[in-house]
Amino acid sequence: MRAYLDCIPCLQRQAIQALRFVTDDETMQERILRIVVAKLQDIDWTGTPPEMAHTVHRIVIEECGVKDPYRDVKKRYNDIALNLYPDIKRTVEESSEPLLAAVRMAIAGNIIDFGANPDFDLNKTISAVIGEEFAIFDYSQLETVLENANTMVYLADNTGEIVFDRILLETILDRHPHIGKVVFAVKGAPVINDATIDDARYAGIDKLSGVEFLQVGTGLPNSGIERTSKKFHEILDSADLVISKGQGNYEALGDHSGIFFLLMAKCPVIASDLNVKIGDIVLKGTYT
Amino acid sequence: MRAYLDCIPCLQRQAIQALRFVTDDETMQERILRIVVAKLQDIDWTGTPPEMAHTVHRIVIEECGVKDPYRDVKKRYNDIALNLYPDIKRTVEESSEPLLAAVRMAIAGNIIDFGANPDFDLNKTISAVIGEEFAIFDYSQLETVLENANTMVYLADNTGEIVFDRILLETILDRHPHIGKVVFAVKGAPVINDATIDDARYAGIDKLSGVEFLQVGTGLPNSGIERTSKKFHEILDSADLVISKGQGNYEALGDHSGIFFLLMAKCPVIASDLNVKIGDIVLKGTYT
Repeated sequence: MRAYLDCIPCLQRQAIQALRFVTDDETMQERILRIVVAKLQDIDWTGTPPEMAHTVHRIVIEECGVKDPYRDVKKRYNDIALNLYPDIKRTVEESSEPLLAAVRMAIAGNIIDFGANPDFDLNKTISAVIGEEFAIFDYSQLETVLENANTMVYLADNTGEIVFDRILLETILDRHPHIGKVVFAVKGAPVINDATIDDARYAGIDKLSGVEFLQVGTGLPNSGIERTSKKFHEILDSADLVISKGQGNYEALGDHSGIFFLLMAKCPVIASDLNVKIGDIVLKGTYT
Repeated sequence: MRAYLDCIPCLQRQAIQALRFVTDDETMQERILRIVVAKLQDIDWTGTPPEMAHTVHRIVIEECGVKDPYRDVKKRYNDIALNLYPDIKRTVEESSEPLLAAVRMAIAGNIIDFGANPDFDLNKTISAVIGEEFAIFDYSQLETVLENANTMVYLADNTGEIVFDRILLETILDRHPHIGKVVFAVKGAPVINDATIDDARYAGIDKLSGVEFLQVGTGLPNSGIERTSKKFHEILDSADLVISKGQGNYEALGDHSGIFFLLMAKCPVIASDLNVKIGDIVLKGTYT
């Protein structure tokens, strides 16, 4: 998905937030925001939103000399989600349709997003999403693909959220032991509050049977395989099932066939692209 | 009040909205947004938010060759408010405290704002504000000043909203006939959805006894007296009572003593400056 004009101010809003996580020095904040504005003024606006976000957040990281502006807030939300784990797990297990309940919870966890919409309420979202109607609901297609899958790629999104992803993965693997291999893709370097391999381990994903990690690039050198690369697309295409979480992965890979996108629409650009409303929950399969 | 960093992306969001009111041509939208971004990159950020907003909206107007991007939406909200007039008027008159009810309604009307927060729900706001607690409530000070006032300045804010202002003015003038002169200040040229003299007449403000209009500058040549000018401050200081509506007037004149600011906090910058929450209603007197 290409960026819309709305992404230009939104990226600056994100930069301001990241700068405030790092420093209270308003002169420094203004100096770095001005670099971000100049960069946005300079570059082509036909990239995808995540590509542009990587450019903006790289400026913040480089200029601040801080490797990860979101480190504390990421830790906080991993801990909040881990505390919720037993309750969410029980809710899913006691549901009449555990897989669907786990899908719902994985989408609810997607509200933990310091990019698109930082003013979220996790507990309220969990309560709402358990009974909410999907705006796009390709669930029976997901069930069919699951029945016949032996390999799977899971594209993670945010910290905290990956605890909910763990529950979905556990629910899938318990019921479909024929899935012997899961590639769990996380970011290869910190960007916004996206999950990295450390977060995935902290959430306990590495304890699941058959899981191996894949690090996805953030535009930084050696940060991992780029989502736009041929090799990455080959990894997706060779898996029997691909589950993708969140807006960023949809923005980068929405045109790719053979993916189930699980997300909550959190900005007008995504909502418009998917023809849904802000706040809507989506399970969209691009299998043909 | 000075601008905050948050104002920089917000002004670009406003420019995008104004551009979309004028044209569907995305190439033109991007070209003009890039001019806005370049201008913001170029200027000092120590001005007030309205000064910077005038700069941004002037670019949109000049580049589009359209005098008023908000013309249709302003007309629509004037009509919506005029249709609500009889009900609101009755609510105020039947209230046990008509002045306070009229103050509340004038603040509710302040939700009609295509600058700070374009995603508003007017009817929901009216219902909520009638029973809402004020975050700042200098009402007894307002009553005292009203008792002794012979002259008054009323700084209007948005179209549509001025119908609610008319009800507040009527309520005041009915109960305080000693107020023989009201200077009703509107914008001297279109900017965002701010009310101009045509809107004030359309809302029927010119029919009220003792009312004369004052046109306030928008940064355009000959658009009226600037809010920063000595002469404008003399007009405020010579009036026994000054009522100011909305965020823009507070941003421009919040440091001035002898004004009652009636507004709803619609953005984090104003909320932080006033030490209230977004959505809070405020009646703040700066009389010393």
